[in-house]
Amino acid sequence: MKHMFASDNSSGVHPRVMEAIARANQGHAVSYGDDEWTQRAHELLRSLFGDDAASFLTFNGTGANVLGLSAVTPPYGSIVCTDCSHVATDECGAPERILGAKVSTVTGRLGKLSPDQIERVVPDIGIQHHSQPRVVSITQPTELGTLYEVDELREIAGVAHAAGMRVHMDGARLSNACAALDIEPRALTADAGVDVLSFGLTKNGAMGAEAVIAFDAEIANDLAYQRKQQMQLASKMRFLAAQFVAMLEDDLWLRNADTANRMAGRLADGAASIDRVTSVYPVQANAVFAAVPHEVIATLQKHQYFYVWEPDRPTVRWMASFDTTETVVDDFVEVIRKEVDAL
Amino acid sequence: MKHMFASDNSSGVHPRVMEAIARANQGHAVSYGDDEWTQRAHELLRSLFGDDAASFLTFNGTGANVLGLSAVTPPYGSIVCTDCSHVATDECGAPERILGAKVSTVTGRLGKLSPDQIERVVPDIGIQHHSQPRVVSITQPTELGTLYEVDELREIAGVAHAAGMRVHMDGARLSNACAALDIEPRALTADAGVDVLSFGLTKNGAMGAEAVIAFDAEIANDLAYQRKQQMQLASKMRFLAAQFVAMLEDDLWLRNADTANRMAGRLADGAASIDRVTSVYPVQANAVFAAVPHEVIATLQKHQYFYVWEPDRPTVRWMASFDTTETVVDDFVEVIRKEVDAL
Amino acid sequence: MKHMFASDNSSGVHPRVMEAIARANQGHAVSYGDDEWTQRAHELLRSLFGDDAASFLTFNGTGANVLGLSAVTPPYGSIVCTDCSHVATDECGAPERILGAKVSTVTGRLGKLSPDQIERVVPDIGIQHHSQPRVVSITQPTELGTLYEVDELREIAGVAHAAGMRVHMDGARLSNACAALDIEPRALTADAGVDVLSFGLTKNGAMGAEAVIAFDAEIANDLAYQRKQQMQLASKMRFLAAQFVAMLEDDLWLRNADTANRMAGRLADGAASIDRVTSVYPVQANAVFAAVPHEVIATLQKHQYFYVWEPDRPTVRWMASFDTTETVVDDFVEVIRKEVDAL
Amino acid sequence: MKHMFASDNSSGVHPRVMEAIARANQGHAVSYGDDEWTQRAHELLRSLFGDDAASFLTFNGTGANVLGLSAVTPPYGSIVCTDCSHVATDECGAPERILGAKVSTVTGRLGKLSPDQIERVVPDIGIQHHSQPRVVSITQPTELGTLYEVDELREIAGVAHAAGMRVHMDGARLSNACAALDIEPRALTADAGVDVLSFGLTKNGAMGAEAVIAFDAEIANDLAYQRKQQMQLASKMRFLAAQFVAMLEDDLWLRNADTANRMAGRLADGAASIDRVTSVYPVQANAVFAAVPHEVIATLQKHQYFYVWEPDRPTVRWMASFDTTETVVDDFVEVIRKEVDAL
Repeated sequence: MKHMFASDNSSGVHPRVMEAIARANQGHAVSYGDDEWTQRAHELLRSLFGDDAASFLTFNGTGANVLGLSAVTPPYGSIVCTDCSHVATDECGAPERILGAKVSTVTGRLGKLSPDQIERVVPDIGIQHHSQPRVVSITQPTELGTLYEVDELREIAGVAHAAGMRVHMDGARLSNACAALDIEPRALTADAGVDVLSFGLTKNGAMGAEAVIAFDAEIANDLAYQRKQQMQLASKMRFLAAQFVAMLEDDLWLRNADTANRMAGRLADGAASIDRVTSVYPVQANAVFAAVPHEVIATLQKHQYFYVWEPDRPTVRWMASFDTTETVVDDFVEVIRKEVDAL
Repeated sequence: MKHMFASDNSSGVHPRVMEAIARANQGHAVSYGDDEWTQRAHELLRSLFGDDAASFLTFNGTGANVLGLSAVTPPYGSIVCTDCSHVATDECGAPERILGAKVSTVTGRLGKLSPDQIERVVPDIGIQHHSQPRVVSITQPTELGTLYEVDELREIAGVAHAAGMRVHMDGARLSNACAALDIEPRALTADAGVDVLSFGLTKNGAMGAEAVIAFDAEIANDLAYQRKQQMQLASKMRFLAAQFVAMLEDDLWLRNADTANRMAGRLADGAASIDRVTSVYPVQANAVFAAVPHEVIATLQKHQYFYVWEPDRPTVRWMASFDTTETVVDDFVEVIRKEVDAL
Repeated sequence: MKHMFASDNSSGVHPRVMEAIARANQGHAVSYGDDEWTQRAHELLRSLFGDDAASFLTFNGTGANVLGLSAVTPPYGSIVCTDCSHVATDECGAPERILGAKVSTVTGRLGKLSPDQIERVVPDIGIQHHSQPRVVSITQPTELGTLYEVDELREIAGVAHAAGMRVHMDGARLSNACAALDIEPRALTADAGVDVLSFGLTKNGAMGAEAVIAFDAEIANDLAYQRKQQMQLASKMRFLAAQFVAMLEDDLWLRNADTANRMAGRLADGAASIDRVTSVYPVQANAVFAAVPHEVIATLQKHQYFYVWEPDRPTVRWMASFDTTETVVDDFVEVIRKEVDAL
Repeated sequence: MKHMFASDNSSGVHPRVMEAIARANQGHAVSYGDDEWTQRAHELLRSLFGDDAASFLTFNGTGANVLGLSAVTPPYGSIVCTDCSHVATDECGAPERILGAKVSTVTGRLGKLSPDQIERVVPDIGIQHHSQPRVVSITQPTELGTLYEVDELREIAGVAHAAGMRVHMDGARLSNACAALDIEPRALTADAGVDVLSFGLTKNGAMGAEAVIAFDAEIANDLAYQRKQQMQLASKMRFLAAQFVAMLEDDLWLRNADTANRMAGRLADGAASIDRVTSVYPVQANAVFAAVPHEVIATLQKHQYFYVWEPDRPTVRWMASFDTTETVVDDFVEVIRKEVDAL
């Protein structure tokens, strides 16, 4: 059973990341982040996100999301996000437990939150019986593989800030958004009004390397303590940092993301050429959501395992990764075609 | 500035662990632990800890401690431990935040908890105003480098179990205890009455690899959810698992720990031969706590950085690691001797 | 500005409750619940709810809800309830903060949860990424003044129990349900499959008296500690208990609820006789939700203040209380009629 | 079995408080604190504590302590207090659970915290591994019935503020301190450097009435939401407020406290005249801690139940209340004398 399209988490580690990890393994180094690799990672992150961007490396994406949210969400606060957002559905209630706060979902439209949905929670502000809307959390690209344009982000941030709310971005796949939109990371985050970001590299060729980027000293202020208390402080931090260095030093993050995006597009195009197979959402990053005849799903999964997202339609999800090749994509398209044609 | 004795966390990764990580980097694999490396790691852990030992790999030691404790500590419970225990002093309040429970410290004797200290909290049981003592947490070897003998562990567990309390062991350096006492891991844990264990390899040559070992199905029951919610579930789990495989497959864990222990002993012996330098605690694992003349501390730290533990005496801590060599130890002893003699 | 229909919380204390409180004020008594009044309250609650019903008095309804839920909800659990349920909307996130768990809402139908909505969350069970559905929380009567029939409750409990979930009932107005359905409290709770109940008297003529009723020793087991830790243990408990005694000893709870129900019915009937005024939900307990012409709302609120529930329609809420009189109702109906006719 | 000296919580409600509660029971009133009684209570509290003192009424003392602390303690913070403080020993871990923070105890000296004990935790500040000392919590009078002089409070606050820490005072019996020291409430709190106060009346003749007093807008800012989320918001608030009004309007709080203090003094003097009976701590408020021959304890408890505080010595605790009379005191002294003389 192969897993080339199951998840970008199923992919391995890019060889240059492996090399950097090995290179970081020289003798003893100060633990908990006071080493040279970590300093270099912070520098590289500042070069991407701006001089006032404070970085806090974490182990995984849930850790980064919750840590970032913890800087902007009081326990009596609520986090407004879509019903398909990772923080709402795939973190086993980590935000609720760690923050004590409410995750308040609205129905996503193609996976996206819209400004009017923020406006609709504003009347709760100031009423002591209700969790106070304090944060809008958006995912870029969304869990459905769609993208917010810069203007959309600006509008969301404008409405949120006007209501005294902060903007958190789950950027577990932010690289894919930057590659797809051809926009600098800072332009897509801080400059668009994002206050705090989870920036992930794990799905893009790292072994396990995520970071919280705080665009504001007030947010950054207590994150070191929060990270330790939230169990996300690595003792041998240099091996986390080395992954950032390898990914960021030579735009590897961008090339990897671009590959994944292109392969998703190729797969979507191939699939669209098959009768009775259609894309369910616009394919804008590295995810393809497709409606396929339910009779072929089990057979296809034997060729390449993947997840059924919405059993009712049925919709399946195919993810492309930094190491997905044209051959693998084309072979899979042919398998689909063969199976569907045989119906 | 060198860090050969600052902490076993300052050490790097054993070459064989690095090789295993590289070997695990083959193509795509199921994420979140359903891969072959993780299955192999679980098998090896069962061979060390018994067939009924359920393992849950985590990123770091604080994560393992809190996750393990979460299975046995209700929010209204208290965790009885010494005042030098890592869970009480060095986790920035992670147990309190994640569990909602009280960490209740007693004064350690050479870093150890004694059965009568457990008996002294028993009267709180059943009184609704008091946090209920539900867990005894001990560290083996202790944070002061001392060891519990098997009989001591049995007695502690006996008193705890009689009072309806569970026993948690922080085994961040359990390997060093096994090497020093020449006892099998299971004999030093489950067979001695330990209910749930944090088993750490990070300080012993891994990159970052810890595990919760539950010796009881009731404890193991909900740990998968707890781990996810506590943000300790790795997506590319195989790279965590590979570290366990490399460390456990050929007793590397034991040899590494033995080296560190021997080097600590050698350093302690060397230092003891110097006038005005004495060991403060028995050197039983890989830590040396020494009283040294305060005038030399800053100079010594320039040769090899280390931490001052108790500023009043002053007491310093020197940790040996799996890669500490006789030459490094002997050189450092000579530096100490020279500096002290020059006073 | 009068508040006769604003909320049953706006009402005062029934004279017999006041007398009981005064009677309890004799000399010194053991604090924290070991007094005779509390023993008597427990007895009376057992006579209502069965011999195996364990009671824990609390200060308020949010306290009772959260305490009851805390016995059946692990932090990685989710509480399935409607989007209009008090635990989801009106407790400022208390369940999330105190339990660390997720409150997972489904769209209520006339304020009620249906068995198929429980079935729809069952697939989450066993998946480590998702909060585990462990509790169904229903409100009886609902926040929209509607009622679950016994058969409906049994079906909900059947589906929930089959999935390993517990059933919590928010019975802040349970008395109104018993009166309306003419059913014994036990038949409407434990016998219908409810595992743990919040039983409220505050809205029904008490000063501030709620209780968690646990129908199962396993649930009751740690509630004393939970209550203390959740800050709901009264020191001078006898004055809480006295309210229960007064309300329960002579069926005052039932008569008060019956009055409130009848007055709501009278108000609904009166309003329905007015052109352009209609009931929005079936009036089954002591709440009337009515659609009224928006032009008259402000004027009506000056006569008797009330809340606008759904600004869009607009829908208003009128609550009847134990002390609502026919005269007050009839006068208000006439005011409405006059204002609407004048449009 | 009588309970005249068991606890000031065993006492009942002062008749004037009862009258005020009855008086508040007139018709309907806005719930949740927007009523006239609550406004009057707030005014009276401002007249005691200053115009910038914001009040939040709560149900009980644990609720007030935790709510007050929640405004000044981040989850990664620690609360420095003595090992006999109520927040550390008698709240079943409520601070840990609700705040997620560490309660960090130091050994009290006659129940009091000293400035040097604060200085000793300052080195933890800025170290990410350690809970950050953010609050000093002191009890006035202490749990051992001793008092801080104004100068002592100022010194504590000075050291705390210099280290960036806030000062919380548990004033469950603050009235007794004011009466004993003959000092205005504001002088003993805000003017002495206290940032946030729990002000309790329950032990002093109320039925159940406590308040958080915030001396700083930044602290008061989110307390309304915190109170609701912490389940301390009363729906029929007027009955809580009425207790404050009755207690504060005519200095009843001060007269009650003075009575209790004098009766404790009388009891201490009487007991001191008995051979083999001695006061263990200075009797400065309404508590007497006495060493008595262990053989008489059980017999004395049959006359008037009381608690054995330190079984080893043995030390017993006798509390005087607002309604303790000279006759009751003198009778009890005679019983003690008779029993001890008969040994």
